[in-house]
Amino acid sequence: MSFKERYDAIVERKRSLLCVGLDSDYERIPECLKGERNPIMKFNEEIINATKEYVCAYKPNAAFYESAGQMGFDAYNAIKSQVGENIPIIADVKRGDIGNTARHYAKSVFDELNFDAATVNPYMGFDAIEPFIMYKGKYVFALALTSNKSATDFEYYHNLYKEVAKKIVEWNKQYDNSIGLVVGATKPEELGEIRDICKDEIFLIPGIGSQGGDVEKVIKNGFGGKYGNMIVNVSRSIIFASNGKDFAEKAAEKAAYYRDLINSFI
Amino acid sequence: MSFKERYDAIVERKRSLLCVGLDSDYERIPECLKGERNPIMKFNEEIINATKEYVCAYKPNAAFYESAGQMGFDAYNAIKSQVGENIPIIADVKRGDIGNTARHYAKSVFDELNFDAATVNPYMGFDAIEPFIMYKGKYVFALALTSNKSATDFEYYHNLYKEVAKKIVEWNKQYDNSIGLVVGATKPEELGEIRDICKDEIFLIPGIGSQGGDVEKVIKNGFGGKYGNMIVNVSRSIIFASNGKDFAEKAAEKAAYYRDLINSFI
Repeated sequence: MSFKERYDAIVERKRSLLCVGLDSDYERIPECLKGERNPIMKFNEEIINATKEYVCAYKPNAAFYESAGQMGFDAYNAIKSQVGENIPIIADVKRGDIGNTARHYAKSVFDELNFDAATVNPYMGFDAIEPFIMYKGKYVFALALTSNKSATDFEYYHNLYKEVAKKIVEWNKQYDNSIGLVVGATKPEELGEIRDICKDEIFLIPGIGSQGGDVEKVIKNGFGGKYGNMIVNVSRSIIFASNGKDFAEKAAEKAAYYRDLINSFI
Repeated sequence: MSFKERYDAIVERKRSLLCVGLDSDYERIPECLKGERNPIMKFNEEIINATKEYVCAYKPNAAFYESAGQMGFDAYNAIKSQVGENIPIIADVKRGDIGNTARHYAKSVFDELNFDAATVNPYMGFDAIEPFIMYKGKYVFALALTSNKSATDFEYYHNLYKEVAKKIVEWNKQYDNSIGLVVGATKPEELGEIRDICKDEIFLIPGIGSQGGDVEKVIKNGFGGKYGNMIVNVSRSIIFASNGKDFAEKAAEKAAYYRDLINSFI
C-alpha cells in the first residue's frame, strides 16, 4: 500500500488527523522501564499499543535513536513491526543531500526501515527531494516554514518559505503529487498563506502541545476544505504525559484529547 | 584537543589540505573484501591506513552507513578508533533540526561517535547550528553554496547563499569562530565572493574529482591568503580508484596526487 492509500484509509476509518511523534528520548523514559532489555523499544511498544486507536500516523524522529547507540538503533528498526501495516509511519529525518548520497538516505528510510514517508530539507533544491520521490508510493514532506524562533534567519528571507511552497506545487504536477510540506503550528497566519498556494498538498504540522501552537487557528487556516490533507503532530505532550507506571494510559488519554480537540475546530 | 588544534597541527605537519571522503558505499566495495566479517569496516581500515599520510581530515558521509543496516552501524562506530587521535573527522551528516532534537543529533556525532566536526543545514536558522557549537572545541560547517545543479532552486534565491555567509560571520563574532562553510567546488566565482565575505572561516569544499570542479580556480578563489583555511574533499575518485586487490594502493596514489595538485596552485 502506498502512503496515501494508508493515510486516506485511516483518516476515513478513525476520523483522526493526529500524529504521535515518537521522540523517545531515553532520558525521559519512565524509570519503571529502565530495567527492560531495551527501554526505548519497550516504551515505543507500550505507547503505540495505547495510542493507535487515536492516530492517523506515527512520526519517529531519528535524532533520539541516533543518540542512543545500539539500543537506539535496535529500537528504531523495531518501529515498523510494532506499528504494523495499517498506520503510516513518517520518518522525521529532515535529510538534505544530493545524488547518490540522497539515494542512500532514501534507501535507509524506505528499504531498510520500511517507513512510508520522510521529511526532507529543501535547501539544496530538487536534487535533495528527487531520490525520495523516485520510490513509488512513498511520500515526502519538505520543510517550508518551521516552528522555531530563528526561522526568521532564512525562511523569511524574501519570503523564501513561499518560494519553497510554489516550487513544490510545480514539482507535484510532474511527480504525481508526492510532496507535502512541513509547516509549524506556531505561525497560523503564514500557514493560511501557504494553504492558498498549496491547495491539495498534505501539510505535516508540528508545534502543537509543548511548543504552544494555537490549535484553533492552525486547523482553521490549514484546513483548506478537505478532511484529510493535514497531519497534526504532537510528541512530548502525549508520550511523556506521565513518567509513572501509568505513562501509557495517560498517553492514550492525551491522544484522545488532541484528536477530539483537532476535530472540534473542523 | 579541539577540532582547530587538530586541524592546524596536521596542516602544519603534513602540508595537506586534502580531506578523504569515506563514502563507503557497500555496492562499490571491492569484491575481494566481500567475504570479510564487515566489508565496510575492513574497507575503511585499509583506505585510512593507506591514505593517512596525505590528508588533513576524513569525512564519512552518514548516508552510506545508515543504508547498510547493522553492518553500516558497526562500521560507522569504528571510524574514530581507526583514524586515531591526530586526524580530525568531519561527520558529513547535514543535519538540520532544532532544540532538543538538534541536541540529540549533536550528542550522537560528538559524544557517541566522538567526531570533531559536523556539517549542518542552515535552513531553519541559528537554532539548527547552536546545539552543535555549544560543544566546546567542536566545529560546524554550515551549507552555504552546494555543488549540485538544483542549488539554483533556493540557494540562489535573492542570493541566499550570501545571506547565509553574512550571518555566519555575525555568529562567529559571538561564538568563538566555531562555524565554517560548505562551498561546492563547481562554482569557483561564487566561492571567491563568499571568501570576500568570510575572510577567516574555514571552507569545506566538496566537488573535486568525480563532480568535476576546476581545482586551480577553486584553490585560487578560496585561498584567502592563509594556508589552512580550506579543506578540499575528494571521495569516490580516491576511495574507488580501483576495485581490484590494489584498491588501497591506488587510493594512496590518488590521495598523494590530489594533495600535490591542490598545493601546486598555492
